[in-house]
Amino acid sequence: MITIALDAVGGDHYPKNPIAGAIQAVQENKDIQVLLVGPEELCKSELAAQGYDGNRIQIFHAPDIISMEDAPAQAVKSKPQSSIPVGLTLHARKQCDAFVSAGNTGALMAASAFILGRLEGVLRPTISSVYPTIHGFRLMVDVGANLEVKPEMLVQFAKMGEVYAREVMNIESPRIGLINVGEEEEKGTEVIKKAHELLKNHPNFVGNIEGRDILHDTADVYVCDGFTGNILLKFGESIPDALQFMIKAVVKKNNLPLEQVQPALGVLKEALAPFDYQVVGGVPFLGVNGVSLVGHGGSSPLAIKNMIFNAVKMVEHQVNDKIVSYLN
Amino acid sequence: MITIALDAVGGDHYPKNPIAGAIQAVQENKDIQVLLVGPEELCKSELAAQGYDGNRIQIFHAPDIISMEDAPAQAVKSKPQSSIPVGLTLHARKQCDAFVSAGNTGALMAASAFILGRLEGVLRPTISSVYPTIHGFRLMVDVGANLEVKPEMLVQFAKMGEVYAREVMNIESPRIGLINVGEEEEKGTEVIKKAHELLKNHPNFVGNIEGRDILHDTADVYVCDGFTGNILLKFGESIPDALQFMIKAVVKKNNLPLEQVQPALGVLKEALAPFDYQVVGGVPFLGVNGVSLVGHGGSSPLAIKNMIFNAVKMVEHQVNDKIVSYLN
Repeated sequence: MITIALDAVGGDHYPKNPIAGAIQAVQENKDIQVLLVGPEELCKSELAAQGYDGNRIQIFHAPDIISMEDAPAQAVKSKPQSSIPVGLTLHARKQCDAFVSAGNTGALMAASAFILGRLEGVLRPTISSVYPTIHGFRLMVDVGANLEVKPEMLVQFAKMGEVYAREVMNIESPRIGLINVGEEEEKGTEVIKKAHELLKNHPNFVGNIEGRDILHDTADVYVCDGFTGNILLKFGESIPDALQFMIKAVVKKNNLPLEQVQPALGVLKEALAPFDYQVVGGVPFLGVNGVSLVGHGGSSPLAIKNMIFNAVKMVEHQVNDKIVSYLN
Repeated sequence: MITIALDAVGGDHYPKNPIAGAIQAVQENKDIQVLLVGPEELCKSELAAQGYDGNRIQIFHAPDIISMEDAPAQAVKSKPQSSIPVGLTLHARKQCDAFVSAGNTGALMAASAFILGRLEGVLRPTISSVYPTIHGFRLMVDVGANLEVKPEMLVQFAKMGEVYAREVMNIESPRIGLINVGEEEEKGTEVIKKAHELLKNHPNFVGNIEGRDILHDTADVYVCDGFTGNILLKFGESIPDALQFMIKAVVKKNNLPLEQVQPALGVLKEALAPFDYQVVGGVPFLGVNGVSLVGHGGSSPLAIKNMIFNAVKMVEHQVNDKIVSYLN
């Protein structure tokens, strides 16, 4: 029986969505149980409200709550009884197999690195994210944990991402691409050039990836520093809203009858669905000595369920053991 | 009479598009003349083919041609008789008021910096670009000239961009935004934090801009290093094709009748028009001691004409004098 600790008060819609996702998860997978970490009474009443009376969802009391706005490092220190440090400490003590949350990403990153520590041989833990392309989701790493990097760190990001993409995203032989300003190997900063040199002989390395090629699915693991990745991630997330606005402006300008463009908007919505990160089942902190995933603040119950299942997959596929043997 | 030197053999469609754009430009603006720089016979026959027999388009013979694929710095050295170095040298000798080209951007940047030199007080010449937002084009600087920057360089990018946005893009009081991973001033790399501190008291500084806010027109001048800017520029340029692909996939998957989605695609095309950099009238190398603009390789005659007019505007509005007095 795999036990996934879940932050019951993480994200914009707690406790409703986390608990709804937990219920869906245990109903769908009989081999797992969920440990809700959060204020006991709040969890109890929400479980009751959603009509769950089974025994595969337990509660671990954590009275405090870290908000989405709290300053990460500070919040973790000042609220030791909140769900994030409590849940991660349970995981560090092997009282559960993973901890997942749709809460404050910065706090989760800081607490995961601090409480779980690093895997053997890892220079820096990193936060990766799925990234939409014309052929579906790929992985981007780093997306904000390490704003400035060394070439060797980029190489580790590539390898950790490769393991996650293969074991959890079911991409058999993940192509590794280095985000850069040009395809030629002499292009880029000194750090990038050195990283390219270090990755050059990797069988799955497809070379430098320019900005124009990211959406076109030219790699399965897009490797970059956390500054570039964070900006690309948030930029991609903003595309649907921006487009809707621009399209409505055109419709208005040309006085087009709404019924004429309605189907259009439907098609567009479906085409842009991959950009809606809310449905994505969380992304992992890779390189920490444990299984810790963070979901979008707006995570739906489905997203929470998928995040739990991604954590289960990381445990079942022993992703961390594979990373350690790959890096050392 | 303002004289704009134009690269007759720059871009993917020479000499046709450059010369067509030159003809449109002199017909529309009686106070300018264009000096075509390129192989004399080629220019002569194309001018004849397009039926121009006026005297406000002259030809300056430059036999060699730098291709879009040539290695920039090397090409400028090895082909001194090509249009780019010849045209910029004419400009440096004040035989024309500006040089514009749709050719090899790297070669143009290198030659502009080398042949024209820097404006007084400028740390590094930079390449800026217009950037599409939901409310139209804004400016992004740097987009590839300086992959690694110092805080003081970012401040100069901001100020040079501000002058260009005001004088050429007609944005009365341009808002300056610093592209960063978070809105809070303590966010970002050391370089970014210092730049924020230096820009903080600038009346037009609107603070840090996250990736998700760029398309939403949160600033008129987006300031970043050339690595980040180059990736954002090319990423933006790739959005229309990627979307078309994704939309067609949805149409196919759902077996939608094409006539039902045809209007949709039309609306989308119009909405995404700003992302089509081919129509943009070139972007300037700011900080060089002269007026040098580069256009998209696929520039249409209209784009070439607009690039010529942007150069004229830079001359008429004395953009460089204003930059010098602003920076010193």
